[in-house]
Amino acid sequence: MAAKEWTDCIKNLKGVVLDMCGVLYDSGEGGGIPIPGSVEAVKRIKASDLQLRFCTNETQATREKFVAKLRRMGFDISVSEVFSPAPAALAILKERSLRPHLLVHDDVLPEFDSVEKTNPNCVVIGDAADNFSYRALNDAFQVLMGLEKPVLFSLGKGRYYKETDGLKLDVGVFMKALEYACDVEAEVVGKPAPMFFQSTLTDMGIQPQEALMIGDDLVNDVGGAQNCGMKALQVRTGKYRPSDEKHPTVTADGYVNNLAEAVDVILKHRGQ
Amino acid sequence: MAAKEWTDCIKNLKGVVLDMCGVLYDSGEGGGIPIPGSVEAVKRIKASDLQLRFCTNETQATREKFVAKLRRMGFDISVSEVFSPAPAALAILKERSLRPHLLVHDDVLPEFDSVEKTNPNCVVIGDAADNFSYRALNDAFQVLMGLEKPVLFSLGKGRYYKETDGLKLDVGVFMKALEYACDVEAEVVGKPAPMFFQSTLTDMGIQPQEALMIGDDLVNDVGGAQNCGMKALQVRTGKYRPSDEKHPTVTADGYVNNLAEAVDVILKHRGQ
Repeated sequence: MAAKEWTDCIKNLKGVVLDMCGVLYDSGEGGGIPIPGSVEAVKRIKASDLQLRFCTNETQATREKFVAKLRRMGFDISVSEVFSPAPAALAILKERSLRPHLLVHDDVLPEFDSVEKTNPNCVVIGDAADNFSYRALNDAFQVLMGLEKPVLFSLGKGRYYKETDGLKLDVGVFMKALEYACDVEAEVVGKPAPMFFQSTLTDMGIQPQEALMIGDDLVNDVGGAQNCGMKALQVRTGKYRPSDEKHPTVTADGYVNNLAEAVDVILKHRGQ
Repeated sequence: MAAKEWTDCIKNLKGVVLDMCGVLYDSGEGGGIPIPGSVEAVKRIKASDLQLRFCTNETQATREKFVAKLRRMGFDISVSEVFSPAPAALAILKERSLRPHLLVHDDVLPEFDSVEKTNPNCVVIGDAADNFSYRALNDAFQVLMGLEKPVLFSLGKGRYYKETDGLKLDVGVFMKALEYACDVEAEVVGKPAPMFFQSTLTDMGIQPQEALMIGDDLVNDVGGAQNCGMKALQVRTGKYRPSDEKHPTVTADGYVNNLAEAVDVILKHRGQ
């Protein structure tokens, strides 16, 4: 049933949006390893008549370093094709004249070099990983409690991701922690915010119904893209869990074993 | 209005239940300092015809060490009068043959000496403070995700408490983090669980309407005790914030500036 439905959209496709971690590669020590067939699958989309963008909640590195890592793995990717939360957050901070207290990974700090950070009037949290110490969380909490109206930005709201040595807590977990501590609701920058998906569509100059999202995170990739009007597939790689296929509120338009299979089906249906 | 109502209950009182941190003392470096008038207020209740119990979510030390600290501050308190979450959790673990993975403060570990901990089938979190590192939270998360049905106990669900150098994140914040990460609901042992308040009443052999709770935490002390059928006052010390008096769901039966004032009013109304 589901498989039939999603293939119906293939003939009208003009662009594909790919999640990165868990779709292209599994992260872990040494930067991670490509998921079998994904390097070739990206090449095949690029050689087709489809446009391609990458949409990631990666906030453990600047976009430049992140793309360089993917290129070392063999992926044909350039910085301008990648949409990530830190540059999107920076734009919001500047637009609203906000001075952030940053609780982020050391390697993503350079993205925020150009914004004033003294006397902060908001908090930005990203996937800080080991920087999520009790002291660092408490510092962010104290900044928020010192504001008349606490403003918290979260670079994504994922629960966890998969590294080569197991599941790891993602930024959403610490967003929930601070939301509860301060009785506020965070503004999510990145997936699943529909505005974030829309920015990839605007960049390609296409409509939501002309685009297909492929991700391993049911709620953030699939649900987020669907809320933006796109069709969305879940791959059975990365953080995929069988229970996702019986999720109470989000149902993917289709499931594929991996990106290679998705690209195979798409290009076959398009006679390429 | 509110003040009038709470004093109405005084004549029927048989027992008083006191929160500790923020009512008796402010915690901080070196163990903390007594709140002015509280040492004397405890003495005055003990000299009256009222029973007295202490109900704390303190989980940064064994009950013995915690009581010893309070005694050094000058409080007339004995271990048998103090109800705290760790012994209550231990009883539940044994009753249900559960083997905990512990994410707690080092100093409370001895409370769990007598329970089997290998091959854990549940997680117990307390106010672990600096032990709430990313790695420790991730370890607890991985234990939960490895269980067919994750079981998480939280020793309290407080948002924060006040130390002499500022507000500090409490265990509830990390409970929310793990709840979100694993999509589970924690079982709270300690305040505001009505069963926890009931245990102090059972120990005194009195009914809820014969007891008054005095605390600085509107939701956990006041709301919890009210849910158990008791009247409850909020003191304007400790973590009290003026906005508590306009809380959308919890309204204290009365407000007093501190414990000394509460005891003054109570004993005057009883002609003592």
